Amino acid sequence: MAVSFPHPRRLSRPVHLGPVVIGGGGPIVVQSMCSTDTRDIAATTAQIAALAEAGCEVVRVAVPDAQAAEALPAIVRASPIPVVADIHFDHRLALASLRAGVHGLRLNPGNIRDPDQVRAVVRAAQERGVPIRIGVNAGSLPPLEGEPGRPPTLKEVQASLPKRMVQAALGHIRILEELDFHDIVVSVKAFDVPTTVAANRLLARQIPYPLHIGITEAGLPWAGTIRSAVGLGILLFEGLGDTIRVSLTGDPVEEVRVAYEILRALNLRRRGPTLVSCPTCGRTEVDLVRLAEEVERRLQGLPASITVAVMGCVVNGPGEARLADYGIAGGRGRGVVFRHGEIVATVPEEKLVETLLAEIRRDFPDLDRPRSAPAGPA
Amino acid sequence: MAVSFPHPRRLSRPVHLGPVVIGGGGPIVVQSMCSTDTRDIAATTAQIAALAEAGCEVVRVAVPDAQAAEALPAIVRASPIPVVADIHFDHRLALASLRAGVHGLRLNPGNIRDPDQVRAVVRAAQERGVPIRIGVNAGSLPPLEGEPGRPPTLKEVQASLPKRMVQAALGHIRILEELDFHDIVVSVKAFDVPTTVAANRLLARQIPYPLHIGITEAGLPWAGTIRSAVGLGILLFEGLGDTIRVSLTGDPVEEVRVAYEILRALNLRRRGPTLVSCPTCGRTEVDLVRLAEEVERRLQGLPASITVAVMGCVVNGPGEARLADYGIAGGRGRGVVFRHGEIVATVPEEKLVETLLAEIRRDFPDLDRPRSAPAGPA
Repeated sequence: MAVSFPHPRRLSRPVHLGPVVIGGGGPIVVQSMCSTDTRDIAATTAQIAALAEAGCEVVRVAVPDAQAAEALPAIVRASPIPVVADIHFDHRLALASLRAGVHGLRLNPGNIRDPDQVRAVVRAAQERGVPIRIGVNAGSLPPLEGEPGRPPTLKEVQASLPKRMVQAALGHIRILEELDFHDIVVSVKAFDVPTTVAANRLLARQIPYPLHIGITEAGLPWAGTIRSAVGLGILLFEGLGDTIRVSLTGDPVEEVRVAYEILRALNLRRRGPTLVSCPTCGRTEVDLVRLAEEVERRLQGLPASITVAVMGCVVNGPGEARLADYGIAGGRGRGVVFRHGEIVATVPEEKLVETLLAEIRRDFPDLDRPRSAPAGPA
Repeated sequence: MAVSFPHPRRLSRPVHLGPVVIGGGGPIVVQSMCSTDTRDIAATTAQIAALAEAGCEVVRVAVPDAQAAEALPAIVRASPIPVVADIHFDHRLALASLRAGVHGLRLNPGNIRDPDQVRAVVRAAQERGVPIRIGVNAGSLPPLEGEPGRPPTLKEVQASLPKRMVQAALGHIRILEELDFHDIVVSVKAFDVPTTVAANRLLARQIPYPLHIGITEAGLPWAGTIRSAVGLGILLFEGLGDTIRVSLTGDPVEEVRVAYEILRALNLRRRGPTLVSCPTCGRTEVDLVRLAEEVERRLQGLPASITVAVMGCVVNGPGEARLADYGIAGGRGRGVVFRHGEIVATVPEEKLVETLLAEIRRDFPDLDRPRSAPAGPA
């Protein structure tokens, strides 16, 4: 059901994290961050495996101290996906992470005060072909100076954020560019969606580097999912964003699932089947919620990017079922089954799901193969 | 944390549904649709009460037959919010709904073939000051004609949708305008987000009427929430949409909750507290998920539109906590509490939530009053 995307994607300079390319017009890369204690190698490795299985393509781990850095070689060895070390302030942790073989650094060079220390980190990254992601969050900007004699109001602080976030990012970028380092990815994130959109628009016009986008501190999973979908949806629809991270206070595997669903909603990437199903109303004469849930369950893990419509009535049902790859449109205790836009059967309600699945099985004979988890990224 | 909205809202002609105004620059109205059998007055009335309590401001019920129309007077009498009758094809159901006192009709006049019948419905609506919403869904368009000698491809069908949806809507609008009827709300919906956005952009330029926006047949709650947040987020951010309906295959009360959360993400409307909380990482030294969940639970139902930050570390924590109305930033087994941007206390982890709540209670003394359900709309 996709129409061509109305906005061309912003073209950015490609950056390599191991085998994964961010930017340069390639697929939008899905990433997440471990919530484990990095010093706990077993827990971190297990979480990375779960993330990778859910489709995560790059994973970040916090490196707050030397013990965390010491755990990195084992974590990097065990990880099926590139590992990014998240460093703040201490250049020795960055050097240790590079020696450990990480594929990327997240580090704001302006936070390392000594120019010699910055130079040492940048040289080491350069030698290893490791990119640096600069990440500016609204919450970690230097304080805004007010008018002489009075502090700035909260409103002034808020209105100033997009420009100040971008200025901070450009400052960090300049430090790297002056050292002739250009393998850069940049993010400017806020909790506030309009602030985040404004900052990214402003930044995108001024740099050639890929953008990592996200809504930071978005909250607990339910509200955080909606906030991320709104914010990342707007940015992606405008053609901005080369890699995305959904931030939820909870299991990072859920971040990956949400990220793919956002990309799917914009036809940017797909992982497995897309279910079109109506909200039911007083016209519905079949048990639609049960039908939709049953179809979703039976298709779970199918790697094929097909669209399946499960519709409850004769008003919009046949039209939607015809637009989908496969579909059912319920009537009074019975329904019509569609395949590639054509009616292929009319059967009683209790046979609708099996008949639909039989049609899908004609194209995907391994439909019923047991699957432990959702399939890999499309 | 709101910045001023970057896009001005499209100004539309205001339309009145009982006491509720749609368009004209007023707040974006949240609506939903009953999933009950309209003939079941008790079930429908109970669902409308639950929807209204969740903040639903307009409710639609399907009127597929005469028995459903006969149930309407009792439903309308019991409803605390305006009721819209959803009618297809049969003008007698529209006339019966108007006699029953509904506050709005959802009806595509072009589907009633006889001009005299259309005129009778429009006159009756006019006399009662009842607006008509025209609703065009991608799934219920007339078939696209192909080139001579071959049917159109699916790709051609998909690419043609936005223009054909708008043409269909304009056709229905013209019928009403020719009868000097202008209390019109219009929707053009598809499952595909870019199709829906393109259709609404095209339509918005050509009519003065308010837009009802939605992503139709968005699916089961989890995926449907994300798809709706992406699609409605893009439209609302562009300034389009005067009333929104989230369509989920499930409980319509959830549609209302999701609708408010989408509006909140864009600072368009707020219902109660907004929680800013970080995704936790290897730097987190407090049990942040537990803290965030506890704060969310304790604030549930508070009508005040406050922002509360629950942050796990010293990197972004203090900054975000300072930007919020209230906040905590955790450190090693202890944390700092903020109120209106100022540090007010440093306490051990186990006292963080109580100290935060005490600060909120200073401004909202009835914080702990028992509440049965989320507060009314902002």
